[in-house]
Amino acid sequence: MKKSLFTIMAAMAFCLGANAQEIKEDFKPSELNQPGQEYPMVNSQGYARFRINAPGAAQVKVSLGLGGQGGTTLKHMGDGIWEGTTAGPMDEGFHYYHVSIDGGIFNDPGTNNYYGSCRWESGIEIPAHDADFYAEKNVPHGNVQQVLFWSESTKQLRRAFVYTPAGYGDAKNQKKKYPVLYLQHGWGEDETAWSNQGHENLIMDNMIAAGEIDPFIIVNTYGMCNEIKFGHMNDFDAKDFETVLCDELIPYIDANFRTKSDKWNRAMAGLSMGGFTTTLVTLRRTEMFGYYGLLSGGSYTPEAIKDPKQVKHIFVSCGSKENPDGVIKSAEALNAAGVKATSFVSEGTAHEFLTWRRALKAMAPLLFK
Amino acid sequence: MKKSLFTIMAAMAFCLGANAQEIKEDFKPSELNQPGQEYPMVNSQGYARFRINAPGAAQVKVSLGLGGQGGTTLKHMGDGIWEGTTAGPMDEGFHYYHVSIDGGIFNDPGTNNYYGSCRWESGIEIPAHDADFYAEKNVPHGNVQQVLFWSESTKQLRRAFVYTPAGYGDAKNQKKKYPVLYLQHGWGEDETAWSNQGHENLIMDNMIAAGEIDPFIIVNTYGMCNEIKFGHMNDFDAKDFETVLCDELIPYIDANFRTKSDKWNRAMAGLSMGGFTTTLVTLRRTEMFGYYGLLSGGSYTPEAIKDPKQVKHIFVSCGSKENPDGVIKSAEALNAAGVKATSFVSEGTAHEFLTWRRALKAMAPLLFK
Repeated sequence: MKKSLFTIMAAMAFCLGANAQEIKEDFKPSELNQPGQEYPMVNSQGYARFRINAPGAAQVKVSLGLGGQGGTTLKHMGDGIWEGTTAGPMDEGFHYYHVSIDGGIFNDPGTNNYYGSCRWESGIEIPAHDADFYAEKNVPHGNVQQVLFWSESTKQLRRAFVYTPAGYGDAKNQKKKYPVLYLQHGWGEDETAWSNQGHENLIMDNMIAAGEIDPFIIVNTYGMCNEIKFGHMNDFDAKDFETVLCDELIPYIDANFRTKSDKWNRAMAGLSMGGFTTTLVTLRRTEMFGYYGLLSGGSYTPEAIKDPKQVKHIFVSCGSKENPDGVIKSAEALNAAGVKATSFVSEGTAHEFLTWRRALKAMAPLLFK
Repeated sequence: MKKSLFTIMAAMAFCLGANAQEIKEDFKPSELNQPGQEYPMVNSQGYARFRINAPGAAQVKVSLGLGGQGGTTLKHMGDGIWEGTTAGPMDEGFHYYHVSIDGGIFNDPGTNNYYGSCRWESGIEIPAHDADFYAEKNVPHGNVQQVLFWSESTKQLRRAFVYTPAGYGDAKNQKKKYPVLYLQHGWGEDETAWSNQGHENLIMDNMIAAGEIDPFIIVNTYGMCNEIKFGHMNDFDAKDFETVLCDELIPYIDANFRTKSDKWNRAMAGLSMGGFTTTLVTLRRTEMFGYYGLLSGGSYTPEAIKDPKQVKHIFVSCGSKENPDGVIKSAEALNAAGVKATSFVSEGTAHEFLTWRRALKAMAPLLFK
């Protein structure tokens, strides 16, 4: 009896796909957990295990799982504790998720929240084999600061985050000026994404400490793209955002930080919708940015670049599970047209933050040369 | 029939206590809601109304309500929507809360989260009649920056937040140096509390813009007091924290920010447990701080101040619903002993953040004189 049940389960596991394998019981708390929280956990194969306390619930599900399987259904283990493990290993890197309790959507109380999908979502980190480049190390660290600037065009106090590299505040550096990268989040996210989910500060700190790049400043602000409804992408011309960015924020940053303020020391890049926004703004404001970057955010056609001398370097990237051929070919077409371009493909990742962390690392050494 | 039901309800409302009154239907979204979220709502009397989507739930409660009544039980309104209003008006200001769905503890998906009770909790704001002093205005704004500093004593990268006043980065101010207030959070909170819940930056921005104070820097870091278990308060001598603060963080801040680094330009203050920590550290490190502040965090006995010349001004405060007599009398005793002290009582508030926002406003003009 037991054996035949095992045979059925093995057959079921086989049906779940090629990823089915024996699960190693070496689960550890996800590094994004709230202080003192054991769950969610992750094992060395990339499986995620969730545990939720909901004594009177009838059904508990987690939105994270394998594509097409609608997430992970948790099982009541007794004493109000629900537990479940993903049906297979997840891609390395950061994932958003939420919990469904009897049909209502909540966050996992075990983990920290991150702004994505136009709401603060739960986050989990599947340790990447190359996670060292954004690890917290005992190297000199830069700061990330919240800036509130008045926007006359939108009649609002608006927010930006500014990464200043280590040594920026040091008394002996007070004459030193820095180039600036304006780096945009994707749809559903906001100006907190690149430091919280993206670890832009740690990536920069580690590259600067290793002598791989010269220090520069990064600025993140809200791209106003969350106001678009799906199916109405073409209505978004980013003109309101262009005014905020180019006529309000950039002058504010140049007045309040020690920046090099010419176009050859200013870059714009963005991920996903932020890449789309970058395309729109850089092509209209050719006098303002010398370097462009699109991270899983499309590409430029050679025809769109009116004068190859208007831009020094274009960076285009995506994950290998996205559209790597499109990205590679578009860089080739740009280079063939006399516009210097570099493509980058993140191995084994999709439209997620590990792809973009790696892209920032690949793009940074190409800027301000 | 309808009338008799109304009579019963009126009688029930009367039984709920002296606060029972006709609820005005002028509810508006709480200002702490996530983008686009209508609920939770607050009306002009200070009632809070919650609405939670949980189609299959059997019981939905919110931890916020009136003291002793165990929060607010929501009622199923149909279509999976649960709704409820607090039994009476809440105190003005910020409140932490959470939602119980069938006995499991979650956050309200409508609002932002704040670190309190050693977890990220939901937050709601009951507009205060004097909210103008921490309102976002079109005045010059300072920045709040995340600083990562290596702590050799704890072998960890640790975090602090630093408020620098408006104009700090301005090219014409690059010789200007500033005094520094080290300002601590309470038990269950962390270094994010004073900027997120406390609005320390907006309070400072508005006071500086109005010419009420000279600009100074504020530093918040994690006080390590969350590691204490209730009932073991006396085990907490704050010695590990004292090393991090005095021997690691302060030298780091003085090296990386334009500070005036003598004791008469350095203050320490804290709320609740952070006040207890402040007492311990300031009395042991008399050479480091010239001003002390305890916000709902006890007081100093005159005997504890070995030499009245060791401190220029002591500030002690609490809410009128805490122990105002104790605070007032302790300042009187200090003054009688030749130690300059000022007490402050926040009218109509308890052990909550509006008390501490007001206390910061009352304390700031007394510092660095």
